[in-house]
Amino acid sequence: MYLQPAKETDMDNLREKVKYIAFDADDTLWVNEPYFREAEARYCALLARFAPPQEIIDTLYQTELKNLAPYGYGAKAFTLSLMETAIGFSNRYSGVHPRNSSGEDSLQSTHPLTPDEMAEVIRIGTSLINVPMEILPGVEQLLKKLHESGKYRLIVATKGDLLDQNRKLQRSGLDKYFHCVEVMYDKNEKTYSELLKKLNCKPREFLMIGNSMKSDILPVLNTGGNGIYIPFHSTWEHEKVEGEVSHPNLYACSTCEDLLDIF
Amino acid sequence: MYLQPAKETDMDNLREKVKYIAFDADDTLWVNEPYFREAEARYCALLARFAPPQEIIDTLYQTELKNLAPYGYGAKAFTLSLMETAIGFSNRYSGVHPRNSSGEDSLQSTHPLTPDEMAEVIRIGTSLINVPMEILPGVEQLLKKLHESGKYRLIVATKGDLLDQNRKLQRSGLDKYFHCVEVMYDKNEKTYSELLKKLNCKPREFLMIGNSMKSDILPVLNTGGNGIYIPFHSTWEHEKVEGEVSHPNLYACSTCEDLLDIF
Repeated sequence: MYLQPAKETDMDNLREKVKYIAFDADDTLWVNEPYFREAEARYCALLARFAPPQEIIDTLYQTELKNLAPYGYGAKAFTLSLMETAIGFSNRYSGVHPRNSSGEDSLQSTHPLTPDEMAEVIRIGTSLINVPMEILPGVEQLLKKLHESGKYRLIVATKGDLLDQNRKLQRSGLDKYFHCVEVMYDKNEKTYSELLKKLNCKPREFLMIGNSMKSDILPVLNTGGNGIYIPFHSTWEHEKVEGEVSHPNLYACSTCEDLLDIF
Repeated sequence: MYLQPAKETDMDNLREKVKYIAFDADDTLWVNEPYFREAEARYCALLARFAPPQEIIDTLYQTELKNLAPYGYGAKAFTLSLMETAIGFSNRYSGVHPRNSSGEDSLQSTHPLTPDEMAEVIRIGTSLINVPMEILPGVEQLLKKLHESGKYRLIVATKGDLLDQNRKLQRSGLDKYFHCVEVMYDKNEKTYSELLKKLNCKPREFLMIGNSMKSDILPVLNTGGNGIYIPFHSTWEHEKVEGEVSHPNLYACSTCEDLLDIF
């Protein structure tokens, strides 16, 4: 993905016009995606008698995509998809088609998913509710500086689970810097427009900072707002964008530390 | 529960000072609680070999209370509690202690919960995502009148699932009357204060209309706001309040139709 570098005059302009600065939460303020990958690894180990890890991960991803519309984002939706996928593997493979960890036929027992295993599936999914809060480099210094400047209202604008995201913010200790929190059921032009209306904020006065080009940046640019893209090393398949991205209101940097010199 | 009747002079005063009118959603705008009761009945039938209905309902309620803190409100949280409770019954009673529907010993088979039954538990819980939208009497006329008056900003302020509540509002067709929607992870003095801050609204300018004295009325009165209580025939145990409730900023009526004459 190609991004134009921010020019100094553009940043002067941005600093002047912006009133609300919104931060994405997961993988922008704190580490998130790697915990989902860890949970998936535990899940694959639990279901190893049904299928090899990659098949389980691929099937789980398809279930998650199918369930985005009815369930939305976050740990509870993820847990429901884990449960559904596990039942599917059990019904397809138990007793019928024994396979080893390479996906070849084996003599390993393939009894159906047990209630205790289903309880473990729930534990794996809901463990994501209590992951450690690991704040990304430069985040706290940036928030402190922006907050103390008194020039901006800072908000958290995140997808994910409503309660979980509010609680993670409190556990992070970063909540004192924010004017308010908005957990969004989806991030698209419609939901950003609704957010701006709620905040009584004009699009050009709104800056979104986040790690997902698809969710944090493109829909904000399309509603007339501004975006700063800060990539994270691990991105969920669903959030990836291919091709060139270039827009006069889009800026990119490597970490929040880079923004300390700009604001 | 005793409530003082609204006096005409009080209502004149309320009409003048209020700028934001917030409506609870479930069982205030539309029917909700009876669908949860129907889901519970299906669930009890599914688990009938493990325990009699009342024992299942009581155990489920305890699980739901325990899970309010980690999971919050809504259909996904409810589904996770259904599954956890079902696993608990299966582990306690399968093969060990056969019982009939009266809770007495029987010769009925008590094999453990099967994957297909687990799938049915998920279906029962997530069926609540797609219940029919049955708007309560007088609601649409009231919203239309308030909206057309141009004097108030109408908002939905509801607990429940973030995506689900937004979608129910769209499906109801009532979304056109509302300035914005706020799904709250809990309804207490802290979260109402956060909402007022987000809306840039003074407490005395805020009126909350809802069917739960505990969630919609008392915390709003305690933050300096105003409340109109409209009871619904079926109230979840967790939302019930005992004793006398009286406050100068509290008004009560039977249905939204009563409010048509007042506003």
